[in-house]
Amino acid sequence: MPYVNIKITNEGATAEQKQELIAGVTNLLKDVLGKNPATTVVVIDEVSTDNWGIAGENVTSRRKKGL
Amino acid sequence: MPYVNIKITNEGATAEQKQELIAGVTNLLKDVLGKNPATTVVVIDEVSTDNWGIAGENVTSRRKKGL
Amino acid sequence: MPYVNIKITNEGATAEQKQELIAGVTNLLKDVLGKNPATTVVVIDEVSTDNWGIAGENVTSRRKKGL
Amino acid sequence: MPYVNIKITNEGATAEQKQELIAGVTNLLKDVLGKNPATTVVVIDEVSTDNWGIAGENVTSRRKKGL
Amino acid sequence: MPYVNIKITNEGATAEQKQELIAGVTNLLKDVLGKNPATTVVVIDEVSTDNWGIAGENVTSRRKKGL
Amino acid sequence: MPYVNIKITNEGATAEQKQELIAGVTNLLKDVLGKNPATTVVVIDEVSTDNWGIAGENVTSRRKKGL
Repeated sequence: MPYVNIKITNEGATAEQKQELIAGVTNLLKDVLGKNPATTVVVIDEVSTDNWGIAGENVTSRRKKGL
Repeated sequence: MPYVNIKITNEGATAEQKQELIAGVTNLLKDVLGKNPATTVVVIDEVSTDNWGIAGENVTSRRKKGL
Repeated sequence: MPYVNIKITNEGATAEQKQELIAGVTNLLKDVLGKNPATTVVVIDEVSTDNWGIAGENVTSRRKKGL
Repeated sequence: MPYVNIKITNEGATAEQKQELIAGVTNLLKDVLGKNPATTVVVIDEVSTDNWGIAGENVTSRRKKGL
Repeated sequence: MPYVNIKITNEGATAEQKQELIAGVTNLLKDVLGKNPATTVVVIDEVSTDNWGIAGENVTSRRKKGL
Repeated sequence: MPYVNIKITNEGATAEQKQELIAGVTNLLKDVLGKNPATTVVVIDEVSTDNWGIAGENVTSRRKKGL
C-alpha cells in the first residue's frame, strides 16, 4: 500500500529508465518491509530546470556553469 | 482551510469533470468537518501514464494489456 | 488508481469523520471519472495549528482571535 | 537540508521571478533557522487554472469573473 | 538532486529498515539515472492507519478483517 | 492562492521561528508575483531525523558524525 513520489529534473529520462525506477522502488519496499507490490503506487514528476533550485540557484543556471 | 491534492493519470479528464471533483471535495469537507469552502484549496495533477506505476509496472504497459 | 492527499489542521477530527472523507473521495472519483475504488488511495495529514499558515499568520494565533 | 515545494497557478511567472522565489526562500531558511543553502532544495509547480480550485470553483472560471 | 517521498502506514518500521529504504532509493537513482547521491534527498512519512484509505476503507478496519 | 509546503527536520524549531517562515514566504510571494496573502497557504512538516535521508544516510547518523 505504499505511495512513492520521485521528483527529478526534466532532462531526458526515457520511458525505460522510468520503468526501472518504478520496478526498483516497488521491489525495495517488498524486500525491506514486505509491502505488497499489487498496491504499491509510484508517481514520477519531471520538473523544468527553471523550476528546480538548489543552493539558492535554479538548475538551468547551474548547468550553464557545468554544475 | 484544507488543502487537497488529487493525482490522476492524464487520460482525458475534461475541465467539466475536474470542476466536479473540485466542487465535490470542497462540499465533502464542509459536510463532514464543517470546513469553510472559501479557503479550501484543491489542486489536481494529471500525470503521464509513463510516469505512474502500480504493481511495479507503468500504466502505459498496463493499458496495452487491457488492465 | 488515483492518489488523494487531504491536509487539515489537527483539531479533533474523529476516526469516523476521517473514514467519511476516505469513502466520500473514493466514491467521487468513481462517479466523476469511473476510477476503480480498489486502487484508489487516500492519505489524510493532520497538521499542528502552529505549522499551518494562512494570510501570513499561523492558525494558533488566528484561533485566539476567533478566526 | 530543507525541501520546499511552491505551487502557483500557471499564469506567466518568468524564469527571473521563479529564480527570485528560489533565492528568497533559501535565504529565509538560512536567516530564520540557520539552514545550509547548499542542501536546500526548492521545487516550483505551475498548475493549470483548470486544475486549481478555491471556494469550490476552478480558477479559470474565477478569472472570467474578475476574481 | 532528486527528491523522493515515501509514504507508508505507521506499523512498526524500524530505524534500520528505514535506513535501508534511504540507501536503496539513493542507489537506484544513481544506477538508473546517474544522479549524485550527495544531493539526493529521501523523506519517509509514516501515516496512522486511521488516516490511510484504500478501496474506500481505512487500514485500521482492513487490518481487523485480516486484509 | 499559492500553496507552499516546507519540510524540515524535527530539531527544535520554535513556534516563533515557524511563524517567521510563514510570514516570510507569504511576503515573498506577494513581492515577487503579486500573490494575495489572504489566500496564501503555508504548511510546515517537521520530520524525524530517522526519516530524512541525504547522501544515502539518515540524519540521525549524520548528526552523530557532526555533519
